[in-house]
Amino acid sequence: MRTVVEKLSHRGHEIVVVVPDISLQFKNFDKFTVKTFSVPYPEDFIESMIKDSSKEVFEERTVPQTIKTLYERVTNSTNWLLTSCKLFLQNETLIKYLEEAHFDVLLSDPAVPCGQIVAEYLSIPSVNFMRGTPFGMDEEASKSPSPPSYIPRLFTGYTDHMDFSQRVKNVVVRLLEYALCHMLYSPYAQVASEFLKRDVTSVDLFSRASIWLLRYDFVFEYPKPVMPNMVFIGGINCVNRKPLNQEFEKLVNSSGDHGFVVFSLGSMVSEIPMHKAMDIAEALRSIPQMVIWRYTGTAPSNLGENTHLVKWLPQNDLLAHPKARAFITHAGSHGIYEGICNAVPMVMLPLFGDQMDNAKRMESRGAGITLNVLDMTPEDLSNALTAVINNPSYKENIQRLSALHLDRPIHPLDLAVHWVEFVMRHKGAPHLRPAAHDLNWIQYHSIDVFAFLFAVLVTSLFISIKCCAFTYRCCCGRKSSRGKSKPKKE
Amino acid sequence: MRTVVEKLSHRGHEIVVVVPDISLQFKNFDKFTVKTFSVPYPEDFIESMIKDSSKEVFEERTVPQTIKTLYERVTNSTNWLLTSCKLFLQNETLIKYLEEAHFDVLLSDPAVPCGQIVAEYLSIPSVNFMRGTPFGMDEEASKSPSPPSYIPRLFTGYTDHMDFSQRVKNVVVRLLEYALCHMLYSPYAQVASEFLKRDVTSVDLFSRASIWLLRYDFVFEYPKPVMPNMVFIGGINCVNRKPLNQEFEKLVNSSGDHGFVVFSLGSMVSEIPMHKAMDIAEALRSIPQMVIWRYTGTAPSNLGENTHLVKWLPQNDLLAHPKARAFITHAGSHGIYEGICNAVPMVMLPLFGDQMDNAKRMESRGAGITLNVLDMTPEDLSNALTAVINNPSYKENIQRLSALHLDRPIHPLDLAVHWVEFVMRHKGAPHLRPAAHDLNWIQYHSIDVFAFLFAVLVTSLFISIKCCAFTYRCCCGRKSSRGKSKPKKE
Repeated sequence: MRTVVEKLSHRGHEIVVVVPDISLQFKNFDKFTVKTFSVPYPEDFIESMIKDSSKEVFEERTVPQTIKTLYERVTNSTNWLLTSCKLFLQNETLIKYLEEAHFDVLLSDPAVPCGQIVAEYLSIPSVNFMRGTPFGMDEEASKSPSPPSYIPRLFTGYTDHMDFSQRVKNVVVRLLEYALCHMLYSPYAQVASEFLKRDVTSVDLFSRASIWLLRYDFVFEYPKPVMPNMVFIGGINCVNRKPLNQEFEKLVNSSGDHGFVVFSLGSMVSEIPMHKAMDIAEALRSIPQMVIWRYTGTAPSNLGENTHLVKWLPQNDLLAHPKARAFITHAGSHGIYEGICNAVPMVMLPLFGDQMDNAKRMESRGAGITLNVLDMTPEDLSNALTAVINNPSYKENIQRLSALHLDRPIHPLDLAVHWVEFVMRHKGAPHLRPAAHDLNWIQYHSIDVFAFLFAVLVTSLFISIKCCAFTYRCCCGRKSSRGKSKPKKE
Repeated sequence: MRTVVEKLSHRGHEIVVVVPDISLQFKNFDKFTVKTFSVPYPEDFIESMIKDSSKEVFEERTVPQTIKTLYERVTNSTNWLLTSCKLFLQNETLIKYLEEAHFDVLLSDPAVPCGQIVAEYLSIPSVNFMRGTPFGMDEEASKSPSPPSYIPRLFTGYTDHMDFSQRVKNVVVRLLEYALCHMLYSPYAQVASEFLKRDVTSVDLFSRASIWLLRYDFVFEYPKPVMPNMVFIGGINCVNRKPLNQEFEKLVNSSGDHGFVVFSLGSMVSEIPMHKAMDIAEALRSIPQMVIWRYTGTAPSNLGENTHLVKWLPQNDLLAHPKARAFITHAGSHGIYEGICNAVPMVMLPLFGDQMDNAKRMESRGAGITLNVLDMTPEDLSNALTAVINNPSYKENIQRLSALHLDRPIHPLDLAVHWVEFVMRHKGAPHLRPAAHDLNWIQYHSIDVFAFLFAVLVTSLFISIKCCAFTYRCCCGRKSSRGKSKPKKE
């Protein structure tokens, strides 16, 4: 979101960023007015939470242990987010400041719908900036149909071509999501109802958005029904391409004809267990390409001469280099888009969240290979790298996707800025709001109408049958009574 | 479509236009290569067909007469279109020429899906350019959901807020449309199957389009689910704004402070019955504004001094003039967009086709007043004109719609050209094609999945009940047998 906010600031808009005082992302951020609210968590809370989850990925556990850990992690983070939200709303000074500032628009990622509560309180239009929300809340709130027959649900790892058993599981997951969605978001509805002093549902909070800026592009996502107030800005993060600094320029230039491989498991994973690091190092030393590996842990002893460990790397700029041959990634959506933008085939080691789905999507398009980081052997990794580098189909496929992705009438950043400013200029976008919002579930699906038509049909059939029966009785009854009376007469 | 084709030509693309030799629209068209095919109809066939239908509008008829006339008109025009299509496909010289030309894309209005048959034969991608197709074929072929609970069907005249009885009628109309759609398009499927020498359905013909260029804008259409391969270019016809020529410039400048009213019932209606023309003249002479009326018939004797009859008028350029106060229109979609572009409130006299729906849409947005041209009195018309000119709400509403419509990140013409060229560059847009095309109706709606889940549920319930009954019988059976045996012992 920062790219959009920076461009808005550059265009003369005054930006106020509201974050909890321990927030990691907005430190040293001097371009905007930053307003913070206190939360009773230690300053390194977020960092340590992230570190813990990244460590957990590599721990081998039984299924019950995995469920227990996952439950604890989800409970911890949802509790922390909900507490932060409550403390934000209870911060009278901050709320008063926001009230007096008379904003034109609120821009937020609605995964945590706290911003929506404030926007509702301040009666200002809002813009949702996101890739997706858990459990299909975005589809429900935007009234965007998503047939489970060809739209795979998140965490299933399916593609848009499912066999019967996959479609059954996909529908079951969709049904479960309704329950999970309610569990996850009903506390926010309660907080909102208390704060706004009227009944508010969680769907209300999400559906108030005038525009949905979605980090979507259909070279990556599966084509599906969308709504007129959805704007697709997938690949917006590939904007800021800068020349490489001297250190990296020197490094990549020394890679020779074989070129180099970019390797990063994202900012959330900084260390991995030594035995896994050694497996990876073993694989990397077996390929002729140079490898630039973002890794902050202790260097594995078997590190090849071709492998360079760095604490940080300019991922997008490196991928943009013509000598980039492959990209080893955890398949976060940001990294995937950088791979697509720069047409670099990928070896994907998904770790958690939506990464498995992302990896499956790229694999289904022939643009990369997915490996399970826990099970893979050094051979698996070196074979996968050799394949994506030497088998031309991977490069051709990612080049085709890249060409499709980059061939757009307007850059995603300009599009995002246009629509935020549109909402500011027109105080929302009510003409793009579907009337479906004014219908309940039964009305929306025309269940009342079909029930009525069915009742009419049944009644008509019943009356027709009765009439036929009556006519039949009249005619045949008379006949038979004549028949019966005849013998009497005889 | 001509604007897009002209711009494509201007950008260096070679354009071939294929039309029947009696075609009215492409006469004296020297910018493109025009290829014609012979049809056994007189040269003035189209003109006389249009003239006849426009005359019929003003004839007062009983309901059976109206149905008979409508049936004859539809049969005549569909027969002529189908015959033309067959003759096109039978024209071996023309087909051979098209085969040898190796086109990159076919651009057509798919209302008559003849172009689609040729595109399929030539194996070239196609782009659909349209506002809509009869009976919802576009929604079926693009796999775009269109819930009848809030999307009014064409010809119902409903808005997106329907009461129960309207929703019932809307659903019934939707169900009827399936049958009508099949009736209308199955002859083309037959023609296509014969020509392509394999089974082709009418949906296949429509759904092969890579991109749907839709003359849609949601200030006019009701927001509804759309698909990623739909591109919205509503208002594309407002592009060519030129300065007024001397005659019209002089005319409008003489209109004084009251300004002027633009009046046109479109190019299809050139004459109206004298009594109706006199009614209209009566109304027009009662307002202080000057009226510029496109009218080719005999001038009514009661024509006011403020009313100027012209054989033709530069509609968009006149509406763009700051002195334009109101627009009397038949509510064709072209005219409506010109009214919106130029923020001129409208008095709408819908005549046939989608015009009643168009008028209802604008009326529901408070941007105009709809009158029934057959029933209206001179007072109705003058009152409506006075209202839209003097009641500021109409002007405010149309200004609001206009501002929303014109505030777009890229002009519809550039957008259309981009997507046609996109299809040419990438030989289609397969990444935007939903996987729904590979599912049948039952699979798409997950009916097989729900039937399976229902069967599983029923079986589980049945087994559970049987188990419970068995357990109950075992326990209680033993008890009761014990109970029974006890007395024996006693």
